[in-house]
Amino acid sequence: MAVHQLSPTRWFSTIGNHPPALTVDDGDTVVAQAIDANGADRHGTKVHTGPNPMTGPIFVRGAEPGDALGVRIDRIMPTRDTGWTRASLAHNVVDPEYVPQLPPRERPTWAIDLAAGRVTPLEAPASLAGWSIAMDPMIGCFGVCPAGGEAISTATSAQHGGNMDWRGFRAGTTVWFPVAVPGALFHLGDGHAVQGDGEIAGTGVETSCEMTVTLSVRKGWGITWPRGEDARGRFTVGNARPLDQALQHATTEMSRWLIEEGHDGVAVSHLLGQGVEYEIANVFDPAYTVICRLPRRVWPG
Amino acid sequence: MAVHQLSPTRWFSTIGNHPPALTVDDGDTVVAQAIDANGADRHGTKVHTGPNPMTGPIFVRGAEPGDALGVRIDRIMPTRDTGWTRASLAHNVVDPEYVPQLPPRERPTWAIDLAAGRVTPLEAPASLAGWSIAMDPMIGCFGVCPAGGEAISTATSAQHGGNMDWRGFRAGTTVWFPVAVPGALFHLGDGHAVQGDGEIAGTGVETSCEMTVTLSVRKGWGITWPRGEDARGRFTVGNARPLDQALQHATTEMSRWLIEEGHDGVAVSHLLGQGVEYEIANVFDPAYTVICRLPRRVWPG
Amino acid sequence: MAVHQLSPTRWFSTIGNHPPALTVDDGDTVVAQAIDANGADRHGTKVHTGPNPMTGPIFVRGAEPGDALGVRIDRIMPTRDTGWTRASLAHNVVDPEYVPQLPPRERPTWAIDLAAGRVTPLEAPASLAGWSIAMDPMIGCFGVCPAGGEAISTATSAQHGGNMDWRGFRAGTTVWFPVAVPGALFHLGDGHAVQGDGEIAGTGVETSCEMTVTLSVRKGWGITWPRGEDARGRFTVGNARPLDQALQHATTEMSRWLIEEGHDGVAVSHLLGQGVEYEIANVFDPAYTVICRLPRRVWPG
Amino acid sequence: MAVHQLSPTRWFSTIGNHPPALTVDDGDTVVAQAIDANGADRHGTKVHTGPNPMTGPIFVRGAEPGDALGVRIDRIMPTRDTGWTRASLAHNVVDPEYVPQLPPRERPTWAIDLAAGRVTPLEAPASLAGWSIAMDPMIGCFGVCPAGGEAISTATSAQHGGNMDWRGFRAGTTVWFPVAVPGALFHLGDGHAVQGDGEIAGTGVETSCEMTVTLSVRKGWGITWPRGEDARGRFTVGNARPLDQALQHATTEMSRWLIEEGHDGVAVSHLLGQGVEYEIANVFDPAYTVICRLPRRVWPG
Repeated sequence: MAVHQLSPTRWFSTIGNHPPALTVDDGDTVVAQAIDANGADRHGTKVHTGPNPMTGPIFVRGAEPGDALGVRIDRIMPTRDTGWTRASLAHNVVDPEYVPQLPPRERPTWAIDLAAGRVTPLEAPASLAGWSIAMDPMIGCFGVCPAGGEAISTATSAQHGGNMDWRGFRAGTTVWFPVAVPGALFHLGDGHAVQGDGEIAGTGVETSCEMTVTLSVRKGWGITWPRGEDARGRFTVGNARPLDQALQHATTEMSRWLIEEGHDGVAVSHLLGQGVEYEIANVFDPAYTVICRLPRRVWPG
Repeated sequence: MAVHQLSPTRWFSTIGNHPPALTVDDGDTVVAQAIDANGADRHGTKVHTGPNPMTGPIFVRGAEPGDALGVRIDRIMPTRDTGWTRASLAHNVVDPEYVPQLPPRERPTWAIDLAAGRVTPLEAPASLAGWSIAMDPMIGCFGVCPAGGEAISTATSAQHGGNMDWRGFRAGTTVWFPVAVPGALFHLGDGHAVQGDGEIAGTGVETSCEMTVTLSVRKGWGITWPRGEDARGRFTVGNARPLDQALQHATTEMSRWLIEEGHDGVAVSHLLGQGVEYEIANVFDPAYTVICRLPRRVWPG
Repeated sequence: MAVHQLSPTRWFSTIGNHPPALTVDDGDTVVAQAIDANGADRHGTKVHTGPNPMTGPIFVRGAEPGDALGVRIDRIMPTRDTGWTRASLAHNVVDPEYVPQLPPRERPTWAIDLAAGRVTPLEAPASLAGWSIAMDPMIGCFGVCPAGGEAISTATSAQHGGNMDWRGFRAGTTVWFPVAVPGALFHLGDGHAVQGDGEIAGTGVETSCEMTVTLSVRKGWGITWPRGEDARGRFTVGNARPLDQALQHATTEMSRWLIEEGHDGVAVSHLLGQGVEYEIANVFDPAYTVICRLPRRVWPG
Repeated sequence: MAVHQLSPTRWFSTIGNHPPALTVDDGDTVVAQAIDANGADRHGTKVHTGPNPMTGPIFVRGAEPGDALGVRIDRIMPTRDTGWTRASLAHNVVDPEYVPQLPPRERPTWAIDLAAGRVTPLEAPASLAGWSIAMDPMIGCFGVCPAGGEAISTATSAQHGGNMDWRGFRAGTTVWFPVAVPGALFHLGDGHAVQGDGEIAGTGVETSCEMTVTLSVRKGWGITWPRGEDARGRFTVGNARPLDQALQHATTEMSRWLIEEGHDGVAVSHLLGQGVEYEIANVFDPAYTVICRLPRRVWPG
């Protein structure tokens, strides 16, 4: 169970079959440095172009197609004291008739106070004088090499993970990705100091981060979409447009999971119909992300 | 602030310009008896046909077009010890390719234990032996007479409210509807002992209920979509298909609300972009319902 | 086979259970005067408010729930020499990011030259000097009283027909609507001198029209969505949002029609898979409309 | 203006930065052999795996990022006398409740009679005895290397083209793709002997084909989505899910095209609002394809 440091000098804006930056064993931990969504590092120096330059990939020994790669997020913390956002709601999350009332697109800076755990917009509008929001760092984009020889832009997401921009990908969460190539080739980056549901301003508070993850191989766990677990229960992830389809993927994957464990379709209907919780992770990226959650409070047994 | 009892002998399966069953003053409380979604009363006797027969309408003195009608849910409690659900996920919430694997549609009965506050499927699948879920009663369908002379089926929803099937419409929640006709003509019914997000089995645990609501008129509050408040903060409601459009309506209404209160578009972007929470109320009815929530924890001041 | 004249003095902005303006026999023809979408008559005088005031309803003797009402459009012709449109693409038919580039909403007037059969924008932009388009008159909104006691706004559409805004509803086309109440209660109006697919400027060239239709009852033809026939073949109509769902309704209805006639699912797949044609009737109204067409050229036998 | 023969021995199931199979000059013609969607060649021998193995890429000298690559389809003809389809409508094109009524997925063979120009299902259902359909060969999947280092599966489509499955991509049509890398790297394949709108059985009549295309470079024509021209007029292509978004992309691209040529937004509204025609190319692949067409009959001047 080694701990590896990964401080890259080259990055990728696709998730694909790139040469590994690091090779680790099943169960190892990696402390990875990630630059921000536009390629600025911990010093604020732009060292790569966007979108969402990836640290990695990491080759995990023993991971083969048909396995799942478990990624436990041990810790994620900004590595500088500023981040940035957009300053307008995204055009696609309001009524089309309301779009002309949105403000122009700018890129304001936010102060990140690691000690206080608060994030504050600099030059805030008057109505937000003194306002700040609690820091809640998360990984915006991570995943494994896709199947079929694809190299998929880090702007979007699919079965392999990618730019899911869910605020639930915080420390304490474990997620499994379907392995499509030997070694899985795990990529990660795009840290946010905080973000609301849906990433509806088009960004979280984007910043460079240190991300500590522990990687494990679950042999022969043939999942279709990412699955995960956190303090509140288990969840599945669907990535697609529109939201309806992302929700279908996530719900279907949760049904498969329950049926693998011995439930029948009626039990699935009872558990999910009366107990499911959904979260809208992002409704901004080319593929939207919906989380289907079975909370512990409704778990049988 | 009178308290009225309303135990109807006729019901409506549309929300429209029906003759009032009761006339009340601004601020009055109504204790209303509601039959279940299929028209069965507290004795389990079918006294009307579905879908979602409405108690009411209630004429609220002083409510005029351009006002908002506030509905505070004081209490909602099942009035019999059984309810029913469907026994399959809805066909539209799973991948189209997965539909053939869903079980047949049946209508199982659930026991409602009011004392224990638990709901239990009778003849449950083996894997759910001993399983139950906490009761969390909610109003499935309520709202005011729509504008433009429409009479809208209680199967669906729109700006006037209607069949929104959100589990957040529980005791302690207040919701405002846009008044379109004199007296508002408030209808309510379709109680659920419990329901997950999305109503993805096509039902909650459907049962007859007693619903206590306090009605108030907010003069000149020209809202477009329902707005509300509960212990977690304020929220807006969007009703439409697909989910993307329901989300647009709810987000736009929240933006309007914030701007009415003196925020500008940048402040809206900061508050919602980094703090918004969405809930998928129903993804089953002809119009889906999405909740846009600004939680107290991110509220300025 | 009588011919009736119907020149109304009151109009409805919902399609519902209104008192009949005329009662006819199965097979009768009605020459109906229709005011424009904003309520202006053949003299340009506003005699009613919008949207889409309906002429009718017409009670058809012998029509009962479970039957289909056939409407053959014999003739439709503008009754004045001007019409109007909007002057911008609708906000919802372009990319959300492109919306700010749309021109302001105005309401330009167009000249209708009945003799020449051409329609010309007055005060056209310089690049359209001398440009005109061929007249192709159509019915924007027509249908029968919906089921379940609903009164549905003439802004939208559903199984009963309504505001479908398809340029294929021109002279020579026959359409059948599912009858939900005795007498069917047929409404019609909202004539356009011409319109492109999708009604993407939000209007056709809106004008008052004389519409001649022949009404017939097809006993026991239990259709779910409107079906029709024209020179190019047969078609079905799906009304819903988003387009995907409107297409599902229309395709399902066409499959049902073929299966009623003795085809099996494989034959349906062959005929439609290799021969279907779709048209996007409107992508502007609250419910969109998609046409599923089986052209004569691929018809078996 | 050389004519090149391209009969490949290796194929790709992504469109990306692959080593060129052929290098040509601007204006050259290529006679390309394409295997079918499952990798079967003109002898019916499976020489590669699916989906949609691509012939190419072809490096076009002089093509640079910011240019458009013109592809004129000179001729496309099946190279064997059989093809295949699926035997059921796709699950996503019917109402979710109707899915259980679809037949099982099989893969029937069709006879292709090149001389008669007809295509006939072998072992057809009884109701289709004697039925055939006119051949109308088309290219299912073609396009250029995408931007940003992506390698995109030939199952789907985007700005670079790809698996658009439009029956309008037949002989006589010219389409331009946005060049993202030097040489453009043009790929093509996936021939269909015939296909209906939408590819709603999930396939056309899939077969090996000879495809003759003439490639030209239009310098500095910075298009976003594919644009094209055929006998009926000009068109743009939008690829996305849902249909609504594909339509938005195509409509926006047509608006941009018209504005580049000197029209203003009002002229665009008049031309498209009253004259546009849409086609649903495919409603089956991961990205759907909608065609926005400005027919010659409404063209100014």
